[in-house]
Amino acid sequence: MHAITIPEPGGPDALVWAEVPDPQPGPDEVVIAIKASAVNRADLLQRQGHYPPPPGAPPYPGLECSGVITAVGADVTEWQLGQEVCALLAGGGYAEQVAVPAAQLLPVPAGLDVADAAALPEVACTVWSNLVDVAGLRRGEKLLVHGGGSGIGTFAIQLGAALGVTVIATARATDDRHDRLRELGATHVIDYSTEDFVAKVKELGGADVILDIIGAAYLSRNIDALATGGRLVVIGMQGGRKAELNLGALLAKRGSIFATALRARPLEQKAAIVRGVWEEVWPLVEAGRIRPVIDRRLPMAQAAEAHRVIESSEHLGKVLLTLA
Amino acid sequence: MHAITIPEPGGPDALVWAEVPDPQPGPDEVVIAIKASAVNRADLLQRQGHYPPPPGAPPYPGLECSGVITAVGADVTEWQLGQEVCALLAGGGYAEQVAVPAAQLLPVPAGLDVADAAALPEVACTVWSNLVDVAGLRRGEKLLVHGGGSGIGTFAIQLGAALGVTVIATARATDDRHDRLRELGATHVIDYSTEDFVAKVKELGGADVILDIIGAAYLSRNIDALATGGRLVVIGMQGGRKAELNLGALLAKRGSIFATALRARPLEQKAAIVRGVWEEVWPLVEAGRIRPVIDRRLPMAQAAEAHRVIESSEHLGKVLLTLA
Repeated sequence: MHAITIPEPGGPDALVWAEVPDPQPGPDEVVIAIKASAVNRADLLQRQGHYPPPPGAPPYPGLECSGVITAVGADVTEWQLGQEVCALLAGGGYAEQVAVPAAQLLPVPAGLDVADAAALPEVACTVWSNLVDVAGLRRGEKLLVHGGGSGIGTFAIQLGAALGVTVIATARATDDRHDRLRELGATHVIDYSTEDFVAKVKELGGADVILDIIGAAYLSRNIDALATGGRLVVIGMQGGRKAELNLGALLAKRGSIFATALRARPLEQKAAIVRGVWEEVWPLVEAGRIRPVIDRRLPMAQAAEAHRVIESSEHLGKVLLTLA
Repeated sequence: MHAITIPEPGGPDALVWAEVPDPQPGPDEVVIAIKASAVNRADLLQRQGHYPPPPGAPPYPGLECSGVITAVGADVTEWQLGQEVCALLAGGGYAEQVAVPAAQLLPVPAGLDVADAAALPEVACTVWSNLVDVAGLRRGEKLLVHGGGSGIGTFAIQLGAALGVTVIATARATDDRHDRLRELGATHVIDYSTEDFVAKVKELGGADVILDIIGAAYLSRNIDALATGGRLVVIGMQGGRKAELNLGALLAKRGSIFATALRARPLEQKAAIVRGVWEEVWPLVEAGRIRPVIDRRLPMAQAAEAHRVIESSEHLGKVLLTLA
């Protein structure tokens, strides 16, 4: 088969479409003939050599995909050859085929194009596990989503709205971006480049939960923006890793800080998250209350161009990598 | 009645035993004729002018007491005149009487001297709510308790052992202190003044939960000592408020940081915690698996001396303030 390889870490052109060995399914795995994968920020880090795949994962980038099952491991009973599926991957989505533990498969939600389903597994599992499991977000609370225009952001806005919370999003006000985030369910959209998000969120009573992809650069402002009992969930560190923490400020709010990542979790945790998404989130997708937000579709061999789009931060939603 | 007043914030001698007005019970309150109160670190801060009582609380220090009910508010149905009780207070324990919301009362556990019961409410509510509710401590996990010799520490060691967790405590190795902490249930005791607690805890596999009273000075070391999925609960800041946080290190462990305090919580939260302690912790006290650890008993008018003992950090367990 072909896959995107990284002979030498570097810029987008480090991604090279090349012939590689076909994957073989382990006893608990299936092989998927991939229709589409999607780009995640973690793929950019992997391309730069900063985020190696966990042990046992395929060496190629790609944390999600959709396609058709073409091989089934000996111990897999619940999936069949020819089924259309999407999957959460520990790597290997930028390829014509991938072997994946059966516990990380999801059906393609009814009514959705198979390729488009590749836009969902990583954001659905990341957002749902962090907002619901980790932060315990409850109906009626206020959720602040940083990077509202990202794949994570556009999904978090929709899930928050579907869960009955007030969603506040930050995003630059380029073109019709703010309008589109409001259409997805954001009650308030803040242009972080011209407005003080802390002041705005405080006016609204403070955030019960903050889903953050910035990290260090926002740490003290995020704590400032928390409501009493608020939970800050850091899932990305685009603004650095190290910052001063004022424990007194956190304690005065009885606040908490969580920092998590999905990729390195053990299989049984991933399986539980996938199962939860299937039970709790897929019905919202099938009811049309959450839809994949796709910025553009590019042929997988043009992954370098897709990475440039993500690095520009001018996309809204997901960038798909498709195979004919 | 008499109470310990603070005419001017300052050292231990700022505490003045003086005549003050008797408290009157609100409709949801009872008045307790106090037999004993106990000293908490927060009282020292209040004496220094750094920790004012929350709105509506008595102005005198004292976050817990025991005694006999001498008046019952119009809406209180579950408590009667003459009952022996102990109570979690928002202040006012250093006095001959205190008015307290009925929801913050607990019975004196069977088999316990009434005065000695004053050693329990604050530590039981603080430790139980933080370990069980906040940190979700589970049987089989490893708990690191800093300040193992303090009132909080001696209680946390006993509660952890009763919950079936491995308890690691830090404490200076003065006199027979380490032996006594082992008798209370600590599996490992680390002298933080001569040993590297991080290295020792890592040898043991890392801490699933850390109960910390130090704050800033231990922040990075505590994160270092966490196991994957570990929870750091900061309930005191004897080592300062501000420190650098490495979010990358926290994320690599999928760790979390909680900072909480009991005193400022709204009444309904305190009531839920008191109810939980009554149901879950009092049976352990009545079965002899947890006992109040009392360093010494001093007449309440000698509160200044009691504060000097706590400031010396040479006590083991609680210092009681008694009334004849």
